[in-house]
Amino acid sequence: MLAHRLIERKRDGARIEPGEWRALALAYAKGHVPDYQMAALLMACFLQGLDRGETAALTEAMLLSGDRLERPENGRPRIDKHSTGGVGDKVSLVLAPLIASLGVDVPMMSGRSLGHTGGTLDKLESIPGFRTDLTLAEARAQIELLGCAMMSQTPEIAPADKKMYALRDATATVESIPLIASSIMSKKLAEGLTGLVLDMKRGSGSLLPELDRVLELADVMISLGADHGCPVIALVTAMDRPLGRACGNALEVEEAILALRGEGPPDLLEVTYALGAEMLVLAGVAADIDGARREMEKSIGTGKAAERFQRIIEAQGGNPGVVDDPAVLPQADECELFNAPRRGFVARIEPRTIGRGIIEMGGGRTRVEDVADPAVGFVITARPGDWVEVGEPMATIFARDRSGISSGRVALRAAFLIADEAEPPLPLVSHRVTAAGREVYRKE
Amino acid sequence: MLAHRLIERKRDGARIEPGEWRALALAYAKGHVPDYQMAALLMACFLQGLDRGETAALTEAMLLSGDRLERPENGRPRIDKHSTGGVGDKVSLVLAPLIASLGVDVPMMSGRSLGHTGGTLDKLESIPGFRTDLTLAEARAQIELLGCAMMSQTPEIAPADKKMYALRDATATVESIPLIASSIMSKKLAEGLTGLVLDMKRGSGSLLPELDRVLELADVMISLGADHGCPVIALVTAMDRPLGRACGNALEVEEAILALRGEGPPDLLEVTYALGAEMLVLAGVAADIDGARREMEKSIGTGKAAERFQRIIEAQGGNPGVVDDPAVLPQADECELFNAPRRGFVARIEPRTIGRGIIEMGGGRTRVEDVADPAVGFVITARPGDWVEVGEPMATIFARDRSGISSGRVALRAAFLIADEAEPPLPLVSHRVTAAGREVYRKE
Repeated sequence: MLAHRLIERKRDGARIEPGEWRALALAYAKGHVPDYQMAALLMACFLQGLDRGETAALTEAMLLSGDRLERPENGRPRIDKHSTGGVGDKVSLVLAPLIASLGVDVPMMSGRSLGHTGGTLDKLESIPGFRTDLTLAEARAQIELLGCAMMSQTPEIAPADKKMYALRDATATVESIPLIASSIMSKKLAEGLTGLVLDMKRGSGSLLPELDRVLELADVMISLGADHGCPVIALVTAMDRPLGRACGNALEVEEAILALRGEGPPDLLEVTYALGAEMLVLAGVAADIDGARREMEKSIGTGKAAERFQRIIEAQGGNPGVVDDPAVLPQADECELFNAPRRGFVARIEPRTIGRGIIEMGGGRTRVEDVADPAVGFVITARPGDWVEVGEPMATIFARDRSGISSGRVALRAAFLIADEAEPPLPLVSHRVTAAGREVYRKE
Repeated sequence: MLAHRLIERKRDGARIEPGEWRALALAYAKGHVPDYQMAALLMACFLQGLDRGETAALTEAMLLSGDRLERPENGRPRIDKHSTGGVGDKVSLVLAPLIASLGVDVPMMSGRSLGHTGGTLDKLESIPGFRTDLTLAEARAQIELLGCAMMSQTPEIAPADKKMYALRDATATVESIPLIASSIMSKKLAEGLTGLVLDMKRGSGSLLPELDRVLELADVMISLGADHGCPVIALVTAMDRPLGRACGNALEVEEAILALRGEGPPDLLEVTYALGAEMLVLAGVAADIDGARREMEKSIGTGKAAERFQRIIEAQGGNPGVVDDPAVLPQADECELFNAPRRGFVARIEPRTIGRGIIEMGGGRTRVEDVADPAVGFVITARPGDWVEVGEPMATIFARDRSGISSGRVALRAAFLIADEAEPPLPLVSHRVTAAGREVYRKE
């Protein structure tokens, strides 16, 4: 009867009280509330909205539905980074070992591909042997030892959120600011963080394309962090084109390894450094953004960051040889260049089209039970604003077979817009949002 | 993927096309669309609404999801009556045999109790042995023989509606005009009717208390009937107090039998005659309302109507002796008078409180699997507007045991309002709505 009453209440635009959210989340996690009632409630929440107090109560309720990591006893700061998701976004793979190598614990609990966006877990699992399903006990031990675990949401962490997230995906109730904010923050707060940095994607490839909604989401998550004594800093970054060059699970791991050696594409390194600097300053490990950046460059330059990734891979059952020789990753049977069909400026590289193209080629899932081919994808060398001549190579297609190459070609033809003029793309990092307010981002 | 796309569309306030409704209803009836997706869609429909075209398409889609009764080949008119539901509403029990006794086929497909409102099936099943789960073949044969079957929605009839109706009850998506209209009309149109009369309840005990929404619902159902060549006439009747005196399954069967003998409470007979007259005129069996009324009084006066009820009960496995001796119905172990606690006018007898009181006493279900005690309930002799002295009997409570009597007493104390003044209650029949428009009801 509880669920029915709460659906009715939210349907009519009224508030649900904190104690009710708690009772509901617990009952749902235990299977006492059926999915169909939760689905009706989620749609009512989507359409009627939740105010700040309700969003906070729902976050707390999902957090309390499970277990959590304790605040660190080792005295080390514990900072995580979360991205709202995009195409080519392999920042977590670079950032987690890099920041851990500088004395900050990074409990990197990540997700899977969703819609056209990639997922860190799927990328990591392209490394032969790599296990992401750590138990909470394994994660604790590994963080103590290596300062980092790269893992999926365990069954103990925010189980109500875990079920609701899957349900939202199936019921078209994903793109709701209070539901997104409470889902992310219930998981992140369960990590016992001393700080959190958010990578808020904007642009056509983002879940929330419009800047004003991105900023609103950032504000909500910052206030949810503050409720639990966890300072949160958000950077707004560009997702009007893929990040870096590689798009596709194994290809992205290879590019992340390049970046850990300082050889990655400049935009990937730039976003990684911007987010990492905020993490290091939040952690108290660096005094300011410039100092933080120098620390990161040093760790990469000396090979410390790459070595830390190697040890994490080994601890999680993966083949650590991948860091020295990315050729141990699954390789595509077919590859072929994609050349510019006309001369002009690269006016647009549409991330959604790229992401959907990879799914079409067998590199993503359309249902949870699908098995993705980790080797397929694209390496896109042309950048928005570049001038190209007819026949000039813009990308390489990696596929399972000839028909995959054709699919890839269709996707790239749709994703690239070559025109006589080109608008400048979005700035790579455009805004910085903290509890103190919003500001336009300036590299210091 | 179809369901997800349609949820998204309706969520954003856009239209769903007729072919999509058909595909969805078929897939849902076959179990290919999970309840959680349908629940999200129903909430989106509830909050975003359906236009007339969509309501017609959904009705048609649910109708086509199953089998139906053919239009009669025996040349007899086939008219049904549907009530939107109330407390003490046993009109169907009187009307079906009465109208069938006058040469009109009445395929009375009814529902169960829902919330505080009673259900014809539950009432009929208080007759020892009575079976309401006729197959479509049994129903056809019995209508041919006796002009009437009193039955539940068979599994073959509008199966998509059957599943959606149960889901709406669990997900707080009942009180939506397009969903109510399409649900009722998909079932009724499957009966192959030549006409339909609607008893639209208004007032605090109705599912839709406000007159303007009741009239809107009537208009929608009339236009859905017209789409399928089925003329529909709606009467708006009062549900600001229970209809008749008896409330409770077996008690209501007893009162219906009294009415079939012409001895029922005046308000019950009045509503029955008003609805029955519309049925007979629609059927072409009577030339006008007055003539129809004379026919009905004659059938009751000669015992023809009661005898037809007896034959229907016998055909459906029930004990036909109930018509001559209602004492064969289940009897309550305890009964007690309820007396006026103060002097004054009876200003209010709240139907919802009465209905919920019966559930509290064990006479209704709160879950589908509950077993209701058919013997419990109330016989309410005081009427709104009556003057009562302290200690004057107003009702009798029928219960399983002493604690049931206490529950009943609590319910009646809350249901009755005795005051120094009393507003006049709603007129018993207030409006008549047809395809030609709305008019204030006048007894001719």
